[in-house]
Amino acid sequence: METLRKLYEKASKSYNKLTPHNEFCLDLVLHCQRKLKTGSKFRAYGNFNGIPRIPYSVFALGDSLSRPVRSDLYFANELHFRKEYDHILKILQQPGHRWTNEDRENANRVVYTAVMSFACCIDLWQRKSRKTPGTFFEVYMAGILQTAFPEAVFSKHISLEDLLGDREIGQSTSSEAKPDDESSDKASVSTDVVISVPDRAGGIVIPLKITTRERIVQPFAHQRILDAAFGEGRYKSLIVCISETQLDDKTQSVKQVCVPGTIKLFQKYLAPVTGLYYCDLPQRYVAKDMTGIIAVRSVGHLFEDLRAILH
Amino acid sequence: METLRKLYEKASKSYNKLTPHNEFCLDLVLHCQRKLKTGSKFRAYGNFNGIPRIPYSVFALGDSLSRPVRSDLYFANELHFRKEYDHILKILQQPGHRWTNEDRENANRVVYTAVMSFACCIDLWQRKSRKTPGTFFEVYMAGILQTAFPEAVFSKHISLEDLLGDREIGQSTSSEAKPDDESSDKASVSTDVVISVPDRAGGIVIPLKITTRERIVQPFAHQRILDAAFGEGRYKSLIVCISETQLDDKTQSVKQVCVPGTIKLFQKYLAPVTGLYYCDLPQRYVAKDMTGIIAVRSVGHLFEDLRAILH
Repeated sequence: METLRKLYEKASKSYNKLTPHNEFCLDLVLHCQRKLKTGSKFRAYGNFNGIPRIPYSVFALGDSLSRPVRSDLYFANELHFRKEYDHILKILQQPGHRWTNEDRENANRVVYTAVMSFACCIDLWQRKSRKTPGTFFEVYMAGILQTAFPEAVFSKHISLEDLLGDREIGQSTSSEAKPDDESSDKASVSTDVVISVPDRAGGIVIPLKITTRERIVQPFAHQRILDAAFGEGRYKSLIVCISETQLDDKTQSVKQVCVPGTIKLFQKYLAPVTGLYYCDLPQRYVAKDMTGIIAVRSVGHLFEDLRAILH
Repeated sequence: METLRKLYEKASKSYNKLTPHNEFCLDLVLHCQRKLKTGSKFRAYGNFNGIPRIPYSVFALGDSLSRPVRSDLYFANELHFRKEYDHILKILQQPGHRWTNEDRENANRVVYTAVMSFACCIDLWQRKSRKTPGTFFEVYMAGILQTAFPEAVFSKHISLEDLLGDREIGQSTSSEAKPDDESSDKASVSTDVVISVPDRAGGIVIPLKITTRERIVQPFAHQRILDAAFGEGRYKSLIVCISETQLDDKTQSVKQVCVPGTIKLFQKYLAPVTGLYYCDLPQRYVAKDMTGIIAVRSVGHLFEDLRAILH
């Protein structure tokens, strides 16, 4: 795992310095794919028993299993992945490109493959680093989005300090405050990726979550704060996820953990988010009662949608 | 840990059936205290370097350390704990009792000792059960509150299904949805303890969290939803926590992980919660700029405050 760790640090450090890092991410993903191929067994696990059924696989190493993987979305062949990745990056740099369904499917699979190959390596060889796959998802998507929108401004926070009318820097105990996910004394909405266009107010907030679980409330709450602070609709949130799956040992099946009622409540009573994107779309979320309330689409649609909003 | 597991199950099953369970909780807590006393070493760890400094201890078992514990709040003596616990329960059953500062301090210490004794056992002997201490906190507080307010109605959810105007039961994939923390298809605000009075609309929502971390957003978001759905102020939220501490291995000190800016934002732009209670009050949260925006008090004050709201 030493190589993996080094490649990961190279990518994330470059991202933190806001420099281009797609190449570092690619090196890391290719390393992960090879590691999984040579060090584990990719085998069928069980179905999600929806309509239709969806078969899932896992990477297995002795008794250890990775999270569930959709083999119809995962590019097991490195050359195939590489080819589609190059193609998608090329398309993304052509603002006038007319996306085909095949483009969308492949873009979706490229993101899925990249994030899952890293996450499954962590599952098998470094289970303690539970948060790392989520961070890599952020690093990876930021790299791709920076390539697609070179004119846009990227950041990770929206500062609201001026609005609160107090600055708290230098308080006696503030140096003690170093939370995992939020910036201590600073009043800011801390999201994963924020895209804005120079000379235009507002922007696009992109919370990236491998799965949402109880954290689904965050993007809706942040949207509400942004609406209240800057005026409704000035910022738009597009939530981007990988899946909502979970292995069920007892039944050797896969669950899609969904909370449609909760999302409807948030959309109605907190603030409406603009879209909910998944690589592996949960069946429950593409049912009509959901899509009537919130746009639910594959990650393959994200890039066009972003372009439409930004232009 | 077999005894601990059995005692815990007894208490939580009784709670789930909404039957009195203080006695079961007491058995469990006394078992935990004895287990810590005989099976581990209670020793000084390091300070929180605030003004003033606060020394913390840990229960140690070889290289394993429990979470940090304030020895000035923890009743290490079982008989002492028992005596104060009985006293507090007695006070709580006397609506007319005038609370003294000593009563408050002891009530605060009783809750702290009960929850920490269980949590530290989990830290040392069952580290995998990360969520169990939080559940026990809920079970324990519900038992005490039921004793204090026998006329009140207790629940864990506020249903909003009628407001959404759709009932989703029986959807094809809904049986797949069994999330950890939220009820699948049902549209409800799922909090820890809700107290209401018969024939009176609204109620008191009590989110119980050992530490808040990034989950601090939930109670504010829920308050916002309740305000939007039922009218402002119909429901009041009182957030109840144990501490915000974290060991720092490198410096052998204790951090208090605080996000004052974030809380101010939530209080202003999401919805105002009525109070924030801690057994081990974080220094940063009792600074003036915070208490001017949100009431921050010890758990020892919670019971009087609840009585004042409910009556």
